[in-house]
Amino acid sequence: MALLDEDRLFPAEARSRDIARSLYSHVQDLPIISPHGHTDPRWYAENKPFPDPAELFVTPDHYVFRMLFSQGINLDDLGVRRVDGTAGETDPRAVWRLFAQNYHLFRGTPSRLWLDHSFQEVFGLEVPLSAATADHYYDHIADCLNKPEFLPRALFERFNIEAIATTESPLDNLGWHEMIGQSGWSGKVVTTYRPDAVVDPEFENFAGNVTAFGELTGCDTQSWSGYLEAHRQRRIFFRQHGATASDHGHPTARTENLPPKQAEQLFLKALAGNCSAGEADAFRGHMLTEMARMSLDDGLVMQIHPGAHRNHSMRMMALYGRDKGFDIPTRTDYVQALKPLLDAVGTEPKLSIILFTLDETAYARELAPLAGVYPALKLGPAWWFHDSPEGMMRFREMTTETAGFYNTVGFNDDTRAFCSIPARHDVARRVDCAFLARLVAEGRLAEEEAHEVAHDLAYRLAKQAYRL
Amino acid sequence: MALLDEDRLFPAEARSRDIARSLYSHVQDLPIISPHGHTDPRWYAENKPFPDPAELFVTPDHYVFRMLFSQGINLDDLGVRRVDGTAGETDPRAVWRLFAQNYHLFRGTPSRLWLDHSFQEVFGLEVPLSAATADHYYDHIADCLNKPEFLPRALFERFNIEAIATTESPLDNLGWHEMIGQSGWSGKVVTTYRPDAVVDPEFENFAGNVTAFGELTGCDTQSWSGYLEAHRQRRIFFRQHGATASDHGHPTARTENLPPKQAEQLFLKALAGNCSAGEADAFRGHMLTEMARMSLDDGLVMQIHPGAHRNHSMRMMALYGRDKGFDIPTRTDYVQALKPLLDAVGTEPKLSIILFTLDETAYARELAPLAGVYPALKLGPAWWFHDSPEGMMRFREMTTETAGFYNTVGFNDDTRAFCSIPARHDVARRVDCAFLARLVAEGRLAEEEAHEVAHDLAYRLAKQAYRL
Amino acid sequence: MALLDEDRLFPAEARSRDIARSLYSHVQDLPIISPHGHTDPRWYAENKPFPDPAELFVTPDHYVFRMLFSQGINLDDLGVRRVDGTAGETDPRAVWRLFAQNYHLFRGTPSRLWLDHSFQEVFGLEVPLSAATADHYYDHIADCLNKPEFLPRALFERFNIEAIATTESPLDNLGWHEMIGQSGWSGKVVTTYRPDAVVDPEFENFAGNVTAFGELTGCDTQSWSGYLEAHRQRRIFFRQHGATASDHGHPTARTENLPPKQAEQLFLKALAGNCSAGEADAFRGHMLTEMARMSLDDGLVMQIHPGAHRNHSMRMMALYGRDKGFDIPTRTDYVQALKPLLDAVGTEPKLSIILFTLDETAYARELAPLAGVYPALKLGPAWWFHDSPEGMMRFREMTTETAGFYNTVGFNDDTRAFCSIPARHDVARRVDCAFLARLVAEGRLAEEEAHEVAHDLAYRLAKQAYRL
Repeated sequence: MALLDEDRLFPAEARSRDIARSLYSHVQDLPIISPHGHTDPRWYAENKPFPDPAELFVTPDHYVFRMLFSQGINLDDLGVRRVDGTAGETDPRAVWRLFAQNYHLFRGTPSRLWLDHSFQEVFGLEVPLSAATADHYYDHIADCLNKPEFLPRALFERFNIEAIATTESPLDNLGWHEMIGQSGWSGKVVTTYRPDAVVDPEFENFAGNVTAFGELTGCDTQSWSGYLEAHRQRRIFFRQHGATASDHGHPTARTENLPPKQAEQLFLKALAGNCSAGEADAFRGHMLTEMARMSLDDGLVMQIHPGAHRNHSMRMMALYGRDKGFDIPTRTDYVQALKPLLDAVGTEPKLSIILFTLDETAYARELAPLAGVYPALKLGPAWWFHDSPEGMMRFREMTTETAGFYNTVGFNDDTRAFCSIPARHDVARRVDCAFLARLVAEGRLAEEEAHEVAHDLAYRLAKQAYRL
Repeated sequence: MALLDEDRLFPAEARSRDIARSLYSHVQDLPIISPHGHTDPRWYAENKPFPDPAELFVTPDHYVFRMLFSQGINLDDLGVRRVDGTAGETDPRAVWRLFAQNYHLFRGTPSRLWLDHSFQEVFGLEVPLSAATADHYYDHIADCLNKPEFLPRALFERFNIEAIATTESPLDNLGWHEMIGQSGWSGKVVTTYRPDAVVDPEFENFAGNVTAFGELTGCDTQSWSGYLEAHRQRRIFFRQHGATASDHGHPTARTENLPPKQAEQLFLKALAGNCSAGEADAFRGHMLTEMARMSLDDGLVMQIHPGAHRNHSMRMMALYGRDKGFDIPTRTDYVQALKPLLDAVGTEPKLSIILFTLDETAYARELAPLAGVYPALKLGPAWWFHDSPEGMMRFREMTTETAGFYNTVGFNDDTRAFCSIPARHDVARRVDCAFLARLVAEGRLAEEEAHEVAHDLAYRLAKQAYRL
Repeated sequence: MALLDEDRLFPAEARSRDIARSLYSHVQDLPIISPHGHTDPRWYAENKPFPDPAELFVTPDHYVFRMLFSQGINLDDLGVRRVDGTAGETDPRAVWRLFAQNYHLFRGTPSRLWLDHSFQEVFGLEVPLSAATADHYYDHIADCLNKPEFLPRALFERFNIEAIATTESPLDNLGWHEMIGQSGWSGKVVTTYRPDAVVDPEFENFAGNVTAFGELTGCDTQSWSGYLEAHRQRRIFFRQHGATASDHGHPTARTENLPPKQAEQLFLKALAGNCSAGEADAFRGHMLTEMARMSLDDGLVMQIHPGAHRNHSMRMMALYGRDKGFDIPTRTDYVQALKPLLDAVGTEPKLSIILFTLDETAYARELAPLAGVYPALKLGPAWWFHDSPEGMMRFREMTTETAGFYNTVGFNDDTRAFCSIPARHDVARRVDCAFLARLVAEGRLAEEEAHEVAHDLAYRLAKQAYRL
């Protein structure tokens, strides 16, 4: 028995399914381009075994434990560590059993698809996970993890990853990337410039970070021009470690294009810790335009993904800290918000700004029309809806008619969960083939054109958009 | 000839349809749990015949007469009574004929599905309703209504209703429920605590209501602590009449968690009639948090359904009063609005707050992510879109991936139209089976799991979520 | 080989496709009613040949050139003229080749459907457009354009257009319409009253326009009452040239119903050029209510289409002027915005106000509920999403259940691209038949009723709603 249906995510209707199958058969084995992710470069640098099944699948994956938590299961009992360092359940097998007992909660969710895919394709498991099979699963996976073919680099190669990007702060010394580079291993692991710590006045220890930024770069980051110069230099350093992109996650899509004097004053206020919330927001918005200008010079692709209310629960933030499933999407405006940046640089064909959203209502109304006319804009995939098939399909349905396929950038997985990477790309390829199959079956696209587009969406567009 | 297609609402594609049929065959005859509705308890208490076909299907159902009105048909001619007590058309047969002549207006609407279902399944009619068959319909239904098997309790039993909830004000003496309880009839009819009259400072005669509230409960409702105590006691009284839930319909989802002193001051201002609109809103928002705290003690499930602009037309409100089809949905924010309440009690697994919406854009963006992580939150069904099949399907498509099935609560009918209750539950069961059939046909869920979920959605989840 | 699939846009599933085919076969040849468009009346008046293929398909159609521009192709190279009168590429064949080379960018877009339809059905072309076939296309189309059967009137007749509306300013002398009327040609070309130039205080040269308006009508347009009288008279003049409708495109759906004194003061302020942005908005909003009152007298149908951020790029507006693909939809509220107008005249069954939207999120939430109860309101088609099949289908899915079919008004093409008119109506008819086929296949509508509705949507409703 198999956990996975061979034709999963294809349309049920026979003719469309056959077209989808045919399209998919030509793209399923293409290498993976993963240009926006959050795996840990240390894994590839050290190449040590992953610790245990719970640590691999449950404890670090907020898509998994938030669903369990929503049904009344305590995070302590799932082994999620508190901010104060204490952990409730410390036996990974007990955590695994609790997870397995509640596996029915994931019915109909993308997590279920990724997990089953990992279980079957990565670990060769064939019986469904349940309370009854929990120990069998645990033992089998634990066993595997100690074998050389389950070490991070071996998995990287088995997953057919052509390139993967990680995400680092400008204050990071990129030591793990250095180590990977010097190891002689051929895997392509690049960094991404994510400057929140030094562009967000509300970031913890902003002033201290800017000081450290100056020390790292040898620039006078207490002055506006020195601060900008530090960015320029650090971006070069990141490019030397493979970076082809920067990444910007702000609460809103607000941009500003302030006169230099005004920008300088805001910066000095931010350093002094005197910014109001509105001024901090304006400064972040202005820095997006500065980053865009630097991109015109150094060629880094910009990624903007606004719209999360981060760490929504005060209590959970206090007990367990960030990234515990409490990032809740909010309504996001793009049309007004991006105008200052677009008026500054939006018609530059050499610039590439990739927009993401957590607010699907913006797809047809704002994002597709914007990307369908501004040369600098492209649409990132529907990833913050955790790579959901329904979300991916709605993305194509709501953007293609106005933005076409070629103002989109293929698929990003955006994940920390290493084993789910092939599963997520597989889901994206299947959904895109299903969408294309419908266009073909409905007489809206010739089948040979669909084959070309399928290849573009699975591989070429990501490679090209991210300059990888 | 039949009015209803045996396979209605199932997917057209053969394999999916077969799966849907099979799933449905196992849930179609399950008892009805109707935990949120607006039928009149007096019907079950007195058990008298319903008056006539127009009074049963047209005059009280704003989904029916608003459509006719939108096409230029006068409410007077439909026998809808004015606020001043006058009625235009007083001959129910004339009203019925006008309705029948315009029955084509309901093509493609849920009302049409419910009406045809009632005509065929409740009254055994088999020819389509039209001008030509209007009198046949009228005579046949009028005839039936005088037979014992069409009395409210007989229909209740024929409909296989296991439990139904009605909705009452804290100022209601629950006399009809008392009468039902003492009648020896076994039908389970419970009340619901709907405190608008005494928690909304803008409610007509708010101060007078609070005084009456004090008299009913023996509490000093002129003081903040006495007022809260009155709620506590009245909730106990409602629980004694079967209540398992409270119900809260505010213009927005705003909640507050004010310091006691500040809440008290707002309350006193409200009593004195000195609240600004903003203060009234803050008070209503704070009372949601107070109600949630009481729920933690007494176990009542909370229902919050915000977002209607009530009685949108000034002229129609003046002439015909409330509930005449002029409640228009508005954009509704949940993420900011619910935060105070959620920070206070949102991680309590014993609390159960069921959220409804009229703004579908909130499903994928806000409601599913919130319900998918906060243990206290569950998602109510898509009912304010009047139990529409398309709306129900979109609800599953937009919430399942993030909230799963088990953070939803099955189906509520929310209706005043007694004969439509089986039709609405049948529609919901069919749509859920159609959704599940697609998941199975697309290889995303095993068929035996789908059977279990279908049962959960049709019966178990409502029973469990509402503690019935 | 054909460019078009006979069954395009029908559901892939066989039974539904057969129903859709059958429905479509009865409506495909119905005459075209085009009550809201932007073709140039001069074409029909002069009946001269269209200049060349690039001028016919590329240079004037912002749906075409904005997609090319979004992929880095310069508007100068596409022959789009700058505001200063200069043009980059002046050889239409070079423009055509650039377009043909990039034709793959239109995969999956409605433009592709219209273009292929025009190529095949209007010009008899059968090979796909590409770099290789660019010259063949160019020569063939250029050849055709000089033949009498490709003159504007001949095409009008070949397209089976029963009536077409153009759009003019109150300051227009309607000379082309006059010329058409006197030509003895039987084609029905009517005008539409679009008063932006004299109702929008922010319109270029507003005060001068109002003065000219006075001169044209012989009314004292410096006074509020004279200004209103000028509208009344000019509407009569437009009615004499066939107008059955007025057209109003404001940034928002805001309406006002101000006391006459206050309206007068605003008007005088506007004339003096002293309006704030808020006051200008209020004045526009008030004028919608005035226009509605005039409609009650003279029977003109009102069209309101709010919600575009016009000419979003400062740079492109400065270089190339208006209508260059930079109108970006924004979030639009209707419920609060329309209330003043609806309280004034919304329950008048003789009034007909057709609402359009660029914000699809308003369909299910606001527009369908409003049109489903107010007799004065009808829903315009989904045209600002450029007649997209997906958008049209979502329109039916999100409005039918609440507003029914009979509160919608059939299809409008809203285009300047003459050759695309039959293609657009064909797309609309196919999508409506596909939607109806699904309702029939899912047992929600009888097939004979679907035939009647298909005819209504393709022809009758537009004719009736626009009083043509």
